Amino acid sequence: MRVVTFGELLMRLSPFGQARLLQAEALRAHFGGAEANVAVSLAQFGVEATLVSRLPQHALGQAALNALRRYGVDVRYVARGDERLGLYFLEPGAHGRPAQVLYDRADSAFAHAQRADFDWLAILAGADWFHLSGITPALGGTLPDICADALAACHALGVRVSLDLNYRAALWSRDTAFAVLTPLLPFVDVLIANVEHAKEVLSITVGETELSGGEINRARVQTLAQTLAERYAFSAVALMQRNTHSASSGSIGAMLWADDTAHFSRTYTMQIVDRVGSGDAFAAGLIYATLGGQSPQERVDFALAAACLAHGIEGDFNLVSAAEVQRLLDCGTEDVRR
Amino acid sequence: MRVVTFGELLMRLSPFGQARLLQAEALRAHFGGAEANVAVSLAQFGVEATLVSRLPQHALGQAALNALRRYGVDVRYVARGDERLGLYFLEPGAHGRPAQVLYDRADSAFAHAQRADFDWLAILAGADWFHLSGITPALGGTLPDICADALAACHALGVRVSLDLNYRAALWSRDTAFAVLTPLLPFVDVLIANVEHAKEVLSITVGETELSGGEINRARVQTLAQTLAERYAFSAVALMQRNTHSASSGSIGAMLWADDTAHFSRTYTMQIVDRVGSGDAFAAGLIYATLGGQSPQERVDFALAAACLAHGIEGDFNLVSAAEVQRLLDCGTEDVRR
Amino acid sequence: MRVVTFGELLMRLSPFGQARLLQAEALRAHFGGAEANVAVSLAQFGVEATLVSRLPQHALGQAALNALRRYGVDVRYVARGDERLGLYFLEPGAHGRPAQVLYDRADSAFAHAQRADFDWLAILAGADWFHLSGITPALGGTLPDICADALAACHALGVRVSLDLNYRAALWSRDTAFAVLTPLLPFVDVLIANVEHAKEVLSITVGETELSGGEINRARVQTLAQTLAERYAFSAVALMQRNTHSASSGSIGAMLWADDTAHFSRTYTMQIVDRVGSGDAFAAGLIYATLGGQSPQERVDFALAAACLAHGIEGDFNLVSAAEVQRLLDCGTEDVRR
Amino acid sequence: MRVVTFGELLMRLSPFGQARLLQAEALRAHFGGAEANVAVSLAQFGVEATLVSRLPQHALGQAALNALRRYGVDVRYVARGDERLGLYFLEPGAHGRPAQVLYDRADSAFAHAQRADFDWLAILAGADWFHLSGITPALGGTLPDICADALAACHALGVRVSLDLNYRAALWSRDTAFAVLTPLLPFVDVLIANVEHAKEVLSITVGETELSGGEINRARVQTLAQTLAERYAFSAVALMQRNTHSASSGSIGAMLWADDTAHFSRTYTMQIVDRVGSGDAFAAGLIYATLGGQSPQERVDFALAAACLAHGIEGDFNLVSAAEVQRLLDCGTEDVRR
Amino acid sequence: MRVVTFGELLMRLSPFGQARLLQAEALRAHFGGAEANVAVSLAQFGVEATLVSRLPQHALGQAALNALRRYGVDVRYVARGDERLGLYFLEPGAHGRPAQVLYDRADSAFAHAQRADFDWLAILAGADWFHLSGITPALGGTLPDICADALAACHALGVRVSLDLNYRAALWSRDTAFAVLTPLLPFVDVLIANVEHAKEVLSITVGETELSGGEINRARVQTLAQTLAERYAFSAVALMQRNTHSASSGSIGAMLWADDTAHFSRTYTMQIVDRVGSGDAFAAGLIYATLGGQSPQERVDFALAAACLAHGIEGDFNLVSAAEVQRLLDCGTEDVRR
Amino acid sequence: MRVVTFGELLMRLSPFGQARLLQAEALRAHFGGAEANVAVSLAQFGVEATLVSRLPQHALGQAALNALRRYGVDVRYVARGDERLGLYFLEPGAHGRPAQVLYDRADSAFAHAQRADFDWLAILAGADWFHLSGITPALGGTLPDICADALAACHALGVRVSLDLNYRAALWSRDTAFAVLTPLLPFVDVLIANVEHAKEVLSITVGETELSGGEINRARVQTLAQTLAERYAFSAVALMQRNTHSASSGSIGAMLWADDTAHFSRTYTMQIVDRVGSGDAFAAGLIYATLGGQSPQERVDFALAAACLAHGIEGDFNLVSAAEVQRLLDCGTEDVRR
Repeated sequence: MRVVTFGELLMRLSPFGQARLLQAEALRAHFGGAEANVAVSLAQFGVEATLVSRLPQHALGQAALNALRRYGVDVRYVARGDERLGLYFLEPGAHGRPAQVLYDRADSAFAHAQRADFDWLAILAGADWFHLSGITPALGGTLPDICADALAACHALGVRVSLDLNYRAALWSRDTAFAVLTPLLPFVDVLIANVEHAKEVLSITVGETELSGGEINRARVQTLAQTLAERYAFSAVALMQRNTHSASSGSIGAMLWADDTAHFSRTYTMQIVDRVGSGDAFAAGLIYATLGGQSPQERVDFALAAACLAHGIEGDFNLVSAAEVQRLLDCGTEDVRR
Repeated sequence: MRVVTFGELLMRLSPFGQARLLQAEALRAHFGGAEANVAVSLAQFGVEATLVSRLPQHALGQAALNALRRYGVDVRYVARGDERLGLYFLEPGAHGRPAQVLYDRADSAFAHAQRADFDWLAILAGADWFHLSGITPALGGTLPDICADALAACHALGVRVSLDLNYRAALWSRDTAFAVLTPLLPFVDVLIANVEHAKEVLSITVGETELSGGEINRARVQTLAQTLAERYAFSAVALMQRNTHSASSGSIGAMLWADDTAHFSRTYTMQIVDRVGSGDAFAAGLIYATLGGQSPQERVDFALAAACLAHGIEGDFNLVSAAEVQRLLDCGTEDVRR
Repeated sequence: MRVVTFGELLMRLSPFGQARLLQAEALRAHFGGAEANVAVSLAQFGVEATLVSRLPQHALGQAALNALRRYGVDVRYVARGDERLGLYFLEPGAHGRPAQVLYDRADSAFAHAQRADFDWLAILAGADWFHLSGITPALGGTLPDICADALAACHALGVRVSLDLNYRAALWSRDTAFAVLTPLLPFVDVLIANVEHAKEVLSITVGETELSGGEINRARVQTLAQTLAERYAFSAVALMQRNTHSASSGSIGAMLWADDTAHFSRTYTMQIVDRVGSGDAFAAGLIYATLGGQSPQERVDFALAAACLAHGIEGDFNLVSAAEVQRLLDCGTEDVRR
Repeated sequence: MRVVTFGELLMRLSPFGQARLLQAEALRAHFGGAEANVAVSLAQFGVEATLVSRLPQHALGQAALNALRRYGVDVRYVARGDERLGLYFLEPGAHGRPAQVLYDRADSAFAHAQRADFDWLAILAGADWFHLSGITPALGGTLPDICADALAACHALGVRVSLDLNYRAALWSRDTAFAVLTPLLPFVDVLIANVEHAKEVLSITVGETELSGGEINRARVQTLAQTLAERYAFSAVALMQRNTHSASSGSIGAMLWADDTAHFSRTYTMQIVDRVGSGDAFAAGLIYATLGGQSPQERVDFALAAACLAHGIEGDFNLVSAAEVQRLLDCGTEDVRR
Repeated sequence: MRVVTFGELLMRLSPFGQARLLQAEALRAHFGGAEANVAVSLAQFGVEATLVSRLPQHALGQAALNALRRYGVDVRYVARGDERLGLYFLEPGAHGRPAQVLYDRADSAFAHAQRADFDWLAILAGADWFHLSGITPALGGTLPDICADALAACHALGVRVSLDLNYRAALWSRDTAFAVLTPLLPFVDVLIANVEHAKEVLSITVGETELSGGEINRARVQTLAQTLAERYAFSAVALMQRNTHSASSGSIGAMLWADDTAHFSRTYTMQIVDRVGSGDAFAAGLIYATLGGQSPQERVDFALAAACLAHGIEGDFNLVSAAEVQRLLDCGTEDVRR
Repeated sequence: MRVVTFGELLMRLSPFGQARLLQAEALRAHFGGAEANVAVSLAQFGVEATLVSRLPQHALGQAALNALRRYGVDVRYVARGDERLGLYFLEPGAHGRPAQVLYDRADSAFAHAQRADFDWLAILAGADWFHLSGITPALGGTLPDICADALAACHALGVRVSLDLNYRAALWSRDTAFAVLTPLLPFVDVLIANVEHAKEVLSITVGETELSGGEINRARVQTLAQTLAERYAFSAVALMQRNTHSASSGSIGAMLWADDTAHFSRTYTMQIVDRVGSGDAFAAGLIYATLGGQSPQERVDFALAAACLAHGIEGDFNLVSAAEVQRLLDCGTEDVRR
């Protein structure tokens, strides 16, 4: 199995422990980015995963590339440039104070990518799947065009395509997102989104999808997925619902619309070590289970269990094996293994 | 708005992570002290906040002073001496084992402060508010006299005064506290205390104020506040009730008696990052909201939300802005902000 | 009071914070081992505690020895060898992912211990109690014989004996454990075990001992203990039941069968700082309370409170005093002590 | 004494210990910038020092501002903007491998400063000295114009002006530097530079100023200073010469041309803890000694001793007192002081 | 260019800073091993470098593999086993106390490698060079046979071979080394060794090769190399001489015998950050320069400059680029680059 | 061999790396004190070493006691009190800036020791040697009397006595030192001092003992020792001379006057990791070599080599074995041992 993803890899700088940025005398350096996270997660599952991207030549760009190599991602198609490395600062939250992301990614080597940097027919030769998130076109420049190039090549080569909506209000408005994403959606087989973004960015009117008490309104979520699937001819729509209790605890649930049926997963309530990247872990789990020929119910269960585990891993990358995801599905909570 | 506070600033030494003092190979250095914490918190809210204190000349005293400057507190009226810096060691707790404070503050430069060190009429000129906690007179020496000097100057200049009872059994007995505080109370406009200390130190008989299950007995707390207000002619009495579940979780509630009415805030149940300084954050929130002309209900809500957030900040200082307090009041729990 | 224990002391290497071994750039070094943990815990209670063991001569072996000395354990009877130091790597868990122990203890200086290394009559002279866990004979070589030597000496000298079953599937099969332990059990006064191991290793058929919802089936647990006590003529059987909610929270309960009666302790639900060594803390608490002449109910209460506190201490060693255990029994949860 | 400086404050991110950026899992955060460093150093000497600058509103910008406040710099005239905070990454060097600075400062809030941000007549009222380095105009945009505004105000108010040439090849070419700086130089009283930059940027032909063996050619350096002083009517020219032995050791010497005479200081050969900011420490020392009315020889001696000490301080800021500089001049090397 | 190496990769555990193992509360984890170090260094030079090895399946084995991938080494031919990961503990030295290596590598997955684990004709297809050090056969078991297999395949495929003598007294005696290495030497093109090992292991009598004062006796070193080249028909012999001043400083020199001529490099005297791996850096530099068609003088200069830089890099791996080595050769010592 | 020492054990708090106290966000905690350092050093040499002292009951006092136990010192005779633990802050120096000790030891449990705390005849029974430094009587209170008690007991029991002058200007004046020490000196067999203190505190006029260039004036140092030996009937006088090059390098030499002859050791020039405690290491080395029956030349050589190694150990304690001292004497500088 070979999966190709396309997106930016950033350096993430976050204070140690629970410190605020105001207090921090040192910052931990991780690397992450929506599509890179998907690629790393797939590589841990044993999939041949490629990140297509663009990074600066200098030591920080090389460090970012090395982080991908370390976890087994194929980096042959990462172009190199002279611009800066995209950064983001992550301040951990606490009770009553949300975690906070401060983007410092403008003018990065990735944002300056050009269509000529990527020969998609060569890159996608032999690929089984292509994954993209809404963040990549949101970065503007020629990136929407490059996404279109990639999707056209997927179409030509018969590569299946997933898109994670991944809406970020700090990057673009809902209207722009809708305008830019609309021409891309016909090329997409599997749409992944959280419930709120699916409703708002793609303008689906289904009413309040959350019941009082945080429970999901299953009927409305099903309607949402079905509407989307029909409108854009998606073969499947995966929706995740997140319920934040505090910066260190929350719950997640998911539904997969496939074969004209809604398949709901169980809900996980979790202590959170690191919230960032769990949506990408969900996407990777879904792609892995789909490529592995699992049933729709198994797919959504695997994807959500992967997302659950991602909350317990420091950094953006979901460094768990497929066996560990399966163990959570099979055994539930266990004492120390020794 | 200009607020003046008077108290000691200590260096706090605590093990990293969850280590016991017995295990610690290194100690984190923070700075804190009841009134200093109030000043820092007010400075984060944009108030012009002054700490009047006394610190040694040497490098540690300078480091303490610099910690105040860093967070925007006016240090012009900090006298300097040749004695030592007050210290305290803080051992974090765990389930079934309370956090523990080990004071090492005797003979500090502050404990040796003299009346001539402080020209209160000059210091308080232009001030809107003066804040003191019971810890300052508890340190003995000439400090009770200096407190009396300050309060007399407040009276002369029309500066409003708040006193946080802040009873510490390790510093003085209840009887001594009562004897020393009694002559100061007539100068106080707003009394701040937790329910237990208010009852015990000021000898108010209202019966058990906590219901089984940890709920507050609203009627008795109201009686307590009203009795205090009437006895000492306070314009307002703010009472906080703390319910400790374990060293890492607990809940807080509060009531403000003002305008002859009891205003109860909601209760917050929190994961605790750092318990120390949350009472001072409450005092700072109350002063800020009062000076800002908020209603009694808004005052107690703002003060308790500030105290809630303080549990999520490492160190004694409550490094949150007024906007962050307001966001908790307005939005409740939120996912990562990006 | 003098208590002698016999077992291996290993270096434990674990990542900082919540990192996986895959991510770790540094490892914290603690020392631990079932019987060593018991000895250290007893020394904190003021008992004269001796660990009999075998350690390499080199710097790491000396560091291990020093860790025992630091916490007041008598190390006069630790033999020294030329082999390696046993290690284990501990990866912290998270929600849905159990903590994991990776043993690297084969061929250690302890595994190569010889009968001539230990003069048990000399070692045990003046001892009140001897404690052993199932891990020591599980390490094979001549260790089962050495255990038999020690128990024979206890018998000769009238030293009371406790055995903690401490079954580790990674070290031996249930059948081997049963075969090797059976000849040792007649020398044992007090058996300590968790419920599952007691049933499975010693082949007691009592049915499911856990009710749905995680509650203990008291009648069956009592039957289990009574059956064991009768079969092997134990004067007491202490059973602990652990209920894992996640890698960072869980609950524990215990029962002591003594004087032909079952004494159940309360259940503690805890946030977990460090799970390893809590069973050893239970054993140490039981030995301490028994030697101190406490009643059966007091013994099981003290032992379980000690085990509860052990979950809040970093490392294998339960660095709490008897007074701290008693305070938990007397006061329950408290706010910061200052 | 009041000194005003104008320049950018950046966050500096550097690996711990001797790690390369390629290896770094965490970065230490310091703050620095040529003129900010001068201001901090002067504040440690007891001078009233002001940094005029522009910083973003967000948490990182506030952290930068707090770093200045912590060390006593007046920040009243720091404008705030919406752009990013300038960063630089500093990789420590080793034998045969120079330390390396990787700038990431484009598009910062400071680079977007506008003339209207600064009311120079108000800012400079009551100032005794204004200090600028060549880095500020090198950042382009309207910064050269703002520098011209400041210098014009200095001229109007009779404030003395020092300029540190501080040429950075990564920021601008020598030709551009010459073109932009030329109109500013007539406003400058004291020029500070290292010998190489003075020769190359200002196109002074004096031949090789370093003898084989690293010794300075005193006659040529004197000629260089004299030529500069005459060409631009500087009242004094201070030239520093640096001799790099390795990334962790080197030597420095200096000469001050004043009163038509060359005053040479001794040479210091030093182990280097942190090389960055030592030139700024020299400038601060020179300004301090000049304002204090010291003789030319004392000025250059004080400035170079300050620069020497700066090599032993972590971070850009030279956190030493005037007394410590004087002690080096008076006592030389000393054993532990206790 | 493609270079294949064969050897063990170990986890190295060393205290932070200057601590002794006796004091260490935490250990830094690096990965290293003679041939792995060569492969990593070559990969930094842009060479396609392969490490053939055997690692355990578990998390530590995977972490070791990931360390190679991170730095661009091809790991396709790393076999996986069930045994343990080889470890070594490195205690830093100080003045008068040498750094100390404590091996804990017995019974590792690599030591249990079997001939069937490696298909050398497939592995070496397309390779330009094969590198081995004496450590691999020193580990015993079937490793000498596997080395013979590899060398036979090199012979069959025309792949050039270098052997670094790398004698370790802790692993085998000189006699055993001589006996085991002798049948391998006819397959070797380039011998690399330090002067002492070359003399002692291969029993060459040339007299004292070091002059008083630490200078090398050029004539005798030349005789040594020539004798070796003639005896074993090496095309080249590279000898490095190390002069230890203290644990933190020393000097190195080297000579390459090639084309019947001795080519001596300059001597570097260095502050040492990390001494381990510098010999491997020398080997990698020599291979790189030889494959690049450089002259004998250039080869030895490049190799020694690479070794010099390795002393300034934390960990075993020489993380410097070919351009950085060349810069040292071209520019010598430089100030901060910015 | 059994050696008893008497003195205070303090907690030492020092910044990490090279930070100033002004910058420190965390402090490393070591334990040390002149006589405690001697005891620990002797215990590493295999001597049965006892520290007689007084420590607080609380967690910090226990941590101090544990530090002694960890390194094998007999702590049976450490009395416990309710006062505070003595502290000292150590700021590392750099080029041109000396390391600095900030004492915070007033009113410690040791300073409040009483004569009844120590039963010297019991404590010294079976001891071969008693060691004291001038710091203990310098702390005042009843400590000079307790010292006199101890020395009288030594006299009664025939225990040999060494006194390290260890003059600290921060603790007492030279006149007071002279007055307090004079009655103790007749009980002393071996006087240890550095040259300067010996001259100044004991008022010996011998002229300048250091030649220009830092060389020792052997004749005058010999005269000094001989004069002291004769005046006080010392059996031996050991004088150490320290030459500080910078905070991180220096040289030491020593002379032992014994058998009416001066025995000079070689001089060591060292890179310094941690300067504190090297004089105590010298004393320990001298005691060890004397008790071991070594010749005067061997004694001073061993003592100075021990002092040399102490400069390379973090913390006050000289954690080296006698074999390591001997290896420095026998082998000089060595490369990595593996």
